Amino acid sequence: MNTTDIQALLARIDELESRNALRDLVSDYCHGFDKRDWDRFRAIWWEDCVWDIGPPFGVFEGHEGIRNAVYEVLYPFWRETHHLTTNLRLSFETPDIAHGTCDVDCMGADVEDNFLVVGATYNDRFERRDGVWRIAKRQVQMHYFNPLPGARMQGPQG
Amino acid sequence: MNTTDIQALLARIDELESRNALRDLVSDYCHGFDKRDWDRFRAIWWEDCVWDIGPPFGVFEGHEGIRNAVYEVLYPFWRETHHLTTNLRLSFETPDIAHGTCDVDCMGADVEDNFLVVGATYNDRFERRDGVWRIAKRQVQMHYFNPLPGARMQGPQG
Amino acid sequence: MNTTDIQALLARIDELESRNALRDLVSDYCHGFDKRDWDRFRAIWWEDCVWDIGPPFGVFEGHEGIRNAVYEVLYPFWRETHHLTTNLRLSFETPDIAHGTCDVDCMGADVEDNFLVVGATYNDRFERRDGVWRIAKRQVQMHYFNPLPGARMQGPQG
Repeated sequence: MNTTDIQALLARIDELESRNALRDLVSDYCHGFDKRDWDRFRAIWWEDCVWDIGPPFGVFEGHEGIRNAVYEVLYPFWRETHHLTTNLRLSFETPDIAHGTCDVDCMGADVEDNFLVVGATYNDRFERRDGVWRIAKRQVQMHYFNPLPGARMQGPQG
Repeated sequence: MNTTDIQALLARIDELESRNALRDLVSDYCHGFDKRDWDRFRAIWWEDCVWDIGPPFGVFEGHEGIRNAVYEVLYPFWRETHHLTTNLRLSFETPDIAHGTCDVDCMGADVEDNFLVVGATYNDRFERRDGVWRIAKRQVQMHYFNPLPGARMQGPQG
Repeated sequence: MNTTDIQALLARIDELESRNALRDLVSDYCHGFDKRDWDRFRAIWWEDCVWDIGPPFGVFEGHEGIRNAVYEVLYPFWRETHHLTTNLRLSFETPDIAHGTCDVDCMGADVEDNFLVVGATYNDRFERRDGVWRIAKRQVQMHYFNPLPGARMQGPQG
């Protein structure tokens, strides 16, 4: 293989690794938020990020804004959440800028013990800076946000 | 590395990339159908494809058949759908023919405002032609198809 | 490329392939269990494995223990199950030992025809022995385990 071939090969492997790194960010959003692991959750975002959740919650910016969203807005509303993300579709604008779309099904209970189901799509902008991939912007498109009447969310021995 | 080693290495990288391409097709089925993006949806299918949904919907062939299924059968039934595919299991018959099995959880509302939940398995045959992967056949095995009595599907401010 | 560069490249490709192999194990757990394909289900576990489901089911060890769990405990309870795993987050302790965390949404019907929804997290230890990846330990952390009152799980023509 000549140098050009090797560079092309390394670029392909780099993209394969980037796809895994981006998939990990999308997973860590769920694990960090649902398991209330702030360090994991914060680590997915760039400091100058935007988290545009939209109604009924709002738009939040930077690590401080995200911390406020989590601790002042979302956790006071939700007693527990279980986000399941699927259908992750990635595309690369450059080797260091990527766009993602995935769907989420979230089941949770609010602090008043209602069993809620939420369906949404996340549209993400990812940026790699100094070799590290993080989320620059996540925009949430909410499809539905409903109680399941009569259902309760409780543990197997609850 | 000698030529044989390099060929083996390139074949491994090719399969890694093929797996991502196939995963993208499976995701685009959901994004294309649910977000009513016909160009995205059609692009996942070969012109001589088969989409065997089975009861209660039927079997559809070719782009024209798929267009009919979508616009004449499915969208008139569903007001909105939210497909979540997981558990994608791929195997390669050759470098250009692959088989996939994945599971789907679909939550949706029909045009009469019933909240429906559907569980199914997709069995897929993928073919790569002239370097492009698309679906040659998707066979749907429906497990359940039920209303959730009392639930409504509506937006966060609905 | 010199020998060191080639070794580094091969290690990167090896990890990419390992990630796919681990993802396949996680998918095969669902396909094997839900579709009652014992050979597929057993093949994901090492003979000296531990499957710690916790309450209300218990802890099971080895292929014999797993077979008992499946045929003596779980299938007698569940008429059907539909596991959907997402958010798979992998990390490598060594090239041959990996840890995974994923979330599962399971919808199923028990033998008394109740529609149940279960949310849980799987914490896995994977080991590669003689080139083959399998699960050494799966620990289940159950979040909820609830009926959906009024719902029935049945086929599209049921």
